[in-house]
Amino acid sequence: MKAYVLRGGFGLDHVQEEDRPIPSPGPGEVLIRMKAVSLNARDIGVIEGFYEPNRTEPLIPISDGVGEIIARGEHASKFNVGERVSAIFTQSWTTGEPTQENWVSTLGSPLDGLLAEYVVLPEQGLVRVPEHLTDEEASTLPCAAVTAWQALIEEGKIKAGDTAVVQGTGGVSLFALQFAKLYGARVIVTSSSDEKLERAKALGADYGINYRTNPDWEQAVLACTDGRGADHIVDLGGRATLNHSLAALKVGGQISIVGLLSGAVVEGFNVVPAIIRKAKLQAINVGSREMFERMNLVIEQHLLRPVIDRTFPLAQAHNALRYMAQGSAFGKVTIVF
Amino acid sequence: MKAYVLRGGFGLDHVQEEDRPIPSPGPGEVLIRMKAVSLNARDIGVIEGFYEPNRTEPLIPISDGVGEIIARGEHASKFNVGERVSAIFTQSWTTGEPTQENWVSTLGSPLDGLLAEYVVLPEQGLVRVPEHLTDEEASTLPCAAVTAWQALIEEGKIKAGDTAVVQGTGGVSLFALQFAKLYGARVIVTSSSDEKLERAKALGADYGINYRTNPDWEQAVLACTDGRGADHIVDLGGRATLNHSLAALKVGGQISIVGLLSGAVVEGFNVVPAIIRKAKLQAINVGSREMFERMNLVIEQHLLRPVIDRTFPLAQAHNALRYMAQGSAFGKVTIVF
Amino acid sequence: MKAYVLRGGFGLDHVQEEDRPIPSPGPGEVLIRMKAVSLNARDIGVIEGFYEPNRTEPLIPISDGVGEIIARGEHASKFNVGERVSAIFTQSWTTGEPTQENWVSTLGSPLDGLLAEYVVLPEQGLVRVPEHLTDEEASTLPCAAVTAWQALIEEGKIKAGDTAVVQGTGGVSLFALQFAKLYGARVIVTSSSDEKLERAKALGADYGINYRTNPDWEQAVLACTDGRGADHIVDLGGRATLNHSLAALKVGGQISIVGLLSGAVVEGFNVVPAIIRKAKLQAINVGSREMFERMNLVIEQHLLRPVIDRTFPLAQAHNALRYMAQGSAFGKVTIVF
Amino acid sequence: MKAYVLRGGFGLDHVQEEDRPIPSPGPGEVLIRMKAVSLNARDIGVIEGFYEPNRTEPLIPISDGVGEIIARGEHASKFNVGERVSAIFTQSWTTGEPTQENWVSTLGSPLDGLLAEYVVLPEQGLVRVPEHLTDEEASTLPCAAVTAWQALIEEGKIKAGDTAVVQGTGGVSLFALQFAKLYGARVIVTSSSDEKLERAKALGADYGINYRTNPDWEQAVLACTDGRGADHIVDLGGRATLNHSLAALKVGGQISIVGLLSGAVVEGFNVVPAIIRKAKLQAINVGSREMFERMNLVIEQHLLRPVIDRTFPLAQAHNALRYMAQGSAFGKVTIVF
Repeated sequence: MKAYVLRGGFGLDHVQEEDRPIPSPGPGEVLIRMKAVSLNARDIGVIEGFYEPNRTEPLIPISDGVGEIIARGEHASKFNVGERVSAIFTQSWTTGEPTQENWVSTLGSPLDGLLAEYVVLPEQGLVRVPEHLTDEEASTLPCAAVTAWQALIEEGKIKAGDTAVVQGTGGVSLFALQFAKLYGARVIVTSSSDEKLERAKALGADYGINYRTNPDWEQAVLACTDGRGADHIVDLGGRATLNHSLAALKVGGQISIVGLLSGAVVEGFNVVPAIIRKAKLQAINVGSREMFERMNLVIEQHLLRPVIDRTFPLAQAHNALRYMAQGSAFGKVTIVF
Repeated sequence: MKAYVLRGGFGLDHVQEEDRPIPSPGPGEVLIRMKAVSLNARDIGVIEGFYEPNRTEPLIPISDGVGEIIARGEHASKFNVGERVSAIFTQSWTTGEPTQENWVSTLGSPLDGLLAEYVVLPEQGLVRVPEHLTDEEASTLPCAAVTAWQALIEEGKIKAGDTAVVQGTGGVSLFALQFAKLYGARVIVTSSSDEKLERAKALGADYGINYRTNPDWEQAVLACTDGRGADHIVDLGGRATLNHSLAALKVGGQISIVGLLSGAVVEGFNVVPAIIRKAKLQAINVGSREMFERMNLVIEQHLLRPVIDRTFPLAQAHNALRYMAQGSAFGKVTIVF
Repeated sequence: MKAYVLRGGFGLDHVQEEDRPIPSPGPGEVLIRMKAVSLNARDIGVIEGFYEPNRTEPLIPISDGVGEIIARGEHASKFNVGERVSAIFTQSWTTGEPTQENWVSTLGSPLDGLLAEYVVLPEQGLVRVPEHLTDEEASTLPCAAVTAWQALIEEGKIKAGDTAVVQGTGGVSLFALQFAKLYGARVIVTSSSDEKLERAKALGADYGINYRTNPDWEQAVLACTDGRGADHIVDLGGRATLNHSLAALKVGGQISIVGLLSGAVVEGFNVVPAIIRKAKLQAINVGSREMFERMNLVIEQHLLRPVIDRTFPLAQAHNALRYMAQGSAFGKVTIVF
Repeated sequence: MKAYVLRGGFGLDHVQEEDRPIPSPGPGEVLIRMKAVSLNARDIGVIEGFYEPNRTEPLIPISDGVGEIIARGEHASKFNVGERVSAIFTQSWTTGEPTQENWVSTLGSPLDGLLAEYVVLPEQGLVRVPEHLTDEEASTLPCAAVTAWQALIEEGKIKAGDTAVVQGTGGVSLFALQFAKLYGARVIVTSSSDEKLERAKALGADYGINYRTNPDWEQAVLACTDGRGADHIVDLGGRATLNHSLAALKVGGQISIVGLLSGAVVEGFNVVPAIIRKAKLQAINVGSREMFERMNLVIEQHLLRPVIDRTFPLAQAHNALRYMAQGSAFGKVTIVF
């Protein structure tokens, strides 16, 4: 089978197609024929050596994808051959609160990911995917959608009438927008592009703020919240956004710290604005299998469809990764097998 | 009556004793003869011009104190003449969640504080104080104790078996230590002084870490929590401590952001450690009147006594403020009238 | 104007049309021209003398309705003339938890209700209604929908994957069914009619149980929940259903006590089944204005439409009440003006 | 070794001393030499055949006790030989919410209990006991104290300033009284004996109500709560008390359903008083191992001592059971080995 492997260094040039034997499922495991994967900013970071700079062993990258079960190992009985499944991002985090030990089980680093024609995974690390979704759509859920779901629904407990700010129009943000609307919240989207803001409004966003023409975009948030600020802010930027997020937050509001798109290190993080807003900053690291399953039920109920910017064939995996690295997609970038 | 007034600029030299007429209580207000005040780091910041740098009107500083009601205005019926009361820090925050509007009602800036022989306050901004406390002791509660109470009990929901880290041995930290022990938690205290660590242990602390000899004190926290980190960290330092606090936190743990003793601006705040700990950072700004009342009931039930480092007579108010500014007190610094 | 008034005794015969002057709005009040009302079992109970058996003053019955604001009293500025509004069931319960004092402000007993061409109400006791709803539809929300909303969403915190049982196919049950589906839950409906069960399935119910042919319907609930029982049960029957509800409940599940359609007094309520299920029985009494407003936002977002069984013109108000009293409607019974 | 065994029928006459071989610990198990047991109303019910009326196999009764570990089976490493431990009531409920499956693992029925000189138990079903307690005192915790703990602290989330009613002066009630006081609540005790009410006040109760001289004791509860009713009621009576408890409850208050001392079946349970109080009725079935462990930490921190009415030597086990069956003990009845 074909697999893409990061080997001998970091960077896209070190991601090479290789020929590998089709793996065999052990006890409790299943063999999956991959049908589509989706890309996350984290996958680019992994390839660039940001997360495991000292790693030397080869790695199959990409955490998110969907495939069909084609064989089951001993004692594997949860799914049938032929079922379509997604892998959960943190393979060992099935329920409840995470522990330190869970983090070593994330796909696409440190564990091998899904950019291969066949993968073997334990059945406990899989979920069924909503039937109404295409393979490309189903491939987008494990990291981006579950992150948005946990941030706003499970940790954020967003409720009707709340105002949520989502930053940019990448995968997490558009899922956050869609989920927030389902629960009756108002949504403010920020973007550097008026055209993307219009597309976000077509998806249900109530307000759009161009942060290029409004670098102090918190003022615009205050303007459309009677001067009070937002109840929820999904912070994806990190370095360039966290202080602005604090300034745009309502007293008693919550910032979900989920991303570091503009850098992980925030210079000049000032605790005074946090204190006078009684701010809650809740860091989010994707979510458990049960969160994924609950999210899927809601996605199915509302026949919600993920937003896909562009889909590449497997042979153009490098192009897909390069496109993702540009960071300007509206929604998800996917690869079909 | 005598009052100390910050006038004509910032700094201790601009705090002068003045003679003022005894004020009269209006409708819903009472006249209080002050018996003791206690000092907080914030009071020093106010005098130094840190909080309201553009203020030009005179200000009576100091937010915390206790006194006796000696007259009641029209419709004031909640307290009797002769009762001993403390003012709440945020005069208009009586119950529930705070709003932006509440913050303009904090005592000792922007509202006049308590460093005067008589003050008039609305009865809704007062609480009875536990009977077993001396005046000096009772004066210590409004800011430091309520902050620790909200951080660990009302927001932190600390429970038996949790581990809490408190930073240093000032007022908030020692109250946090005392409250955490009441609820069955283990407490780790950090300090630059082994002697203070011993005194903290005498108060119930389970572990002491000298952060001077262990600048990476998070390692010591990990060492005494089986490598897992603390469930709760009351962060008082801000600039010098927040990143260490993150490194000392358990997955799923909570940092209460309550102080800025080493500076408000944290350089190099890294969101990655927050994300891989699913950290919750909850900023705390003292608390409501109802929190104060609930805390007082628990203090009374356990006959808990605040820790006082040193008490000055009113005539030595400047010395008291200078001593407080050194930042090395073990517990509270108070002034008796 | 025409008004229907319960006078001189109880029973439908004592509900008479009267001619009354159009009332004038006082300070903070508005004058509303009623457009539709909907009927609840409670309205029948009020007319029959069940709730206030010693009342002798005349009463305009019916708590729920919708109308258009046609004049505003002094200081009334929350709504504009021409806006369509519904009255909240408990006029003084606007936010937070209720108190004893709130209950004297319920419409249709003890306060005058809405079966009149014009009513005057304080603007604080009103909410805007979703635009996509007809008047008949909008009139159904205040009591039945808010009860279902509080039971499952605000108190029940129902989540995707939970199983809810709703009893019968009256107003509260069908709203509960619709809300539970929005949040990704599975719904089991009970009814004495297979035809109604089919209609409930068409609305989204996952299972239907005929309690006439299955008097021990809890067995059927267990059968479709792997023997575990339901997470949530909205108990509407009271006397005839509560013990069955307990038997159908999952360990750790919640019963919302909302109705007494078969009688208020449960004979032989056995605490043992409650204890071995760690049952939570949460009584529900409609809800606050804020709950109503949050519910309306979700109804608007999903363009959800209430189920109306039958609509009568005002001139046939007696027929409407008689029809409601039969208790066999599928959804709501309404009267249009 | 000696063991007391219920055999050949129900009733105290069927509890006979037998000679049995000392059991051997299997993998993960330990051998315990019992030092003391305490009696609960449930133990009497078990002996009388109330809980398992069709049981025919012999049973060692009594769920609660304390002993010393004298041998460990293979892989048993959690405790050392010589440590003093208590068994948890529901052997398989260690953490989180219970499931149906847990209930088959309760000691003293259906599993063998502790009225034997030696018992073997899995180490996962044990907890260390607070050092400051005597054996008799330590034996009282597993059922009565954990029930009170879960009812008021873990499920009830009692807070300072709340008012709690505890019924009678048996084991659960006095633990509830002691825990409620630790958390700053006011406590009302009911009893048929003025003398016991005085003893309860000496333990910290704020009010005592003699329900013999005040059969409508809810009136007395209302009288000492400004007409509002109690925030928490620990209902131990069941049949004779539940309707009174409802009448004594504050709007929004919680009744913990924990007992059935006067019968399990409540005649005439009226849902109307529940609805107009927005009552929460939470059934409680002892608690998990983690709850027990958290409770022990708080007991240790406050050096809290259980109240023991009377202690019998093992040879008088029948007398102890007879005395317990009278139901008039103030606190716990224990047997020492």
